[in-house]
Amino acid sequence: MLPFYSIDGVIIPSEEAKVRVNDLGLLRGYAIFDFFGVKNGVPVFLEDYIERFEKSAALMDLDLPFRGRELIKKIRELLVANGRENAYVRLLLTGGESVNGFSPEHPTLLMMEYEYELFNNFLPEGGIHLMLDQYVRDLPEVKTTNYARVIRLRSKLKKMGASDLLYHDGKIISESSRSNFFLFKPDGTLVTAERNILLGVTRKHLLKVARELFAVEVRDLLVEELKDARETFLSSTTKGVLPVLQIDGLVVGNGKPGKKCIDLLAAFTEYVNKHIAKYQTE
Amino acid sequence: MLPFYSIDGVIIPSEEAKVRVNDLGLLRGYAIFDFFGVKNGVPVFLEDYIERFEKSAALMDLDLPFRGRELIKKIRELLVANGRENAYVRLLLTGGESVNGFSPEHPTLLMMEYEYELFNNFLPEGGIHLMLDQYVRDLPEVKTTNYARVIRLRSKLKKMGASDLLYHDGKIISESSRSNFFLFKPDGTLVTAERNILLGVTRKHLLKVARELFAVEVRDLLVEELKDARETFLSSTTKGVLPVLQIDGLVVGNGKPGKKCIDLLAAFTEYVNKHIAKYQTE
Repeated sequence: MLPFYSIDGVIIPSEEAKVRVNDLGLLRGYAIFDFFGVKNGVPVFLEDYIERFEKSAALMDLDLPFRGRELIKKIRELLVANGRENAYVRLLLTGGESVNGFSPEHPTLLMMEYEYELFNNFLPEGGIHLMLDQYVRDLPEVKTTNYARVIRLRSKLKKMGASDLLYHDGKIISESSRSNFFLFKPDGTLVTAERNILLGVTRKHLLKVARELFAVEVRDLLVEELKDARETFLSSTTKGVLPVLQIDGLVVGNGKPGKKCIDLLAAFTEYVNKHIAKYQTE
Repeated sequence: MLPFYSIDGVIIPSEEAKVRVNDLGLLRGYAIFDFFGVKNGVPVFLEDYIERFEKSAALMDLDLPFRGRELIKKIRELLVANGRENAYVRLLLTGGESVNGFSPEHPTLLMMEYEYELFNNFLPEGGIHLMLDQYVRDLPEVKTTNYARVIRLRSKLKKMGASDLLYHDGKIISESSRSNFFLFKPDGTLVTAERNILLGVTRKHLLKVARELFAVEVRDLLVEELKDARETFLSSTTKGVLPVLQIDGLVVGNGKPGKKCIDLLAAFTEYVNKHIAKYQTE
């Protein structure tokens, strides 16, 4: 655990970072969050994460105590306090303490910074397995804290040798529980879902990079398209481009990370490094 | 705020009752709860609430640190500490603190006791208005803390003069956000939903009482049946029988609490008082 967190903009020892038990984030799952990486001292794509965090707060009708530049200043203060070149940061806005246990009064803003290594423990096979799950998240465009669906199924996932769920509505694939999903068709076209998803920041930048390399389609992606997929992968802040080698019983391609995934990850890594270098020289 | 709460069976001053910010109840909405009343020193229908709480924990794959008699003992210790004849108690089991922010390790059991008066502030009109909402809760049989749907709509509800939502799937009515829903048909039959609901403890006992007074049907209740309803009401731990006088634009009956609701509430109050008297003499 890194030494410092922050509550409502005040830096405190992480060991002492607690919320009252009548906070609506705890009582009613009423909270939104965001999560970004810091690499070589640069919070990567920070403006995108801030924008999404502020949008989630607005959609949940919660007032942020700090916004825009002021929020970024508070984040930088925490990064300085912990002094890590590489890390991850969670911003969490809860409904705050509530007298009647239901109506938000004063939201609470938490910031937690984590060791970089904590979220980069991928499998030696270079990819993961997913399990299909018929489910459409309520309010998919808001980054709420509602992950009960997938956490409840953790034993079943383990038993199936899968790392996560792949949500679909019976016909159309949307997303994984914490990642966006992509598929390479037999003709080499890259496809990803358009609707009922959280708009990933990594997804956004990855699409930019991918359009330089492949034909790209952002549209409804059908469950039945999985069987002809040559490669599939997840994108997320922590995962970058993570090959999906098996979905339920179906082995994707030859069951190993494919060339397109590897090429895309290399191009994306270069893109991220350029972003970091740009901010370092500013 | 009553002076004492309890964390993992240890009674502490409620002012000091806090959880670490990396608790999964806060980070991932991974928590279940239950909520019961204490009247004249008797926790009403306690066995039913304990049974449901233990079932919710099991369905979420969370281990309770105390179960059955041991759990009841811990509850009684809290009641003695606060010394209130009338109160409400919340049991909350969270996923506990988690190193990776996702996988439950050691669940945390919180118990909060509240002033009885805090949850009995009904409208002078003797009833409330509801707003229809097309939504089926995920895991409706589990009493999770996921109330984002309704809390997010609080401003809209207020604008519409409504107190709560009435969930349906486009055709079949299920429940309100924190209550079961009942309807009296023109022929005097009482109907309530059978599926996709949280099985209310008040609903269970109310059905027992109602069967002595009316014909009762527990089955799929259609949205289109609302227009012919003579009386409608919600049932819950805090509300007992609460008349619903208007649903979206539709005024139910003459827009005032009806005779059947009033009779049922009287019979239910008598039933609860008998239950309390029985436990007081034991």
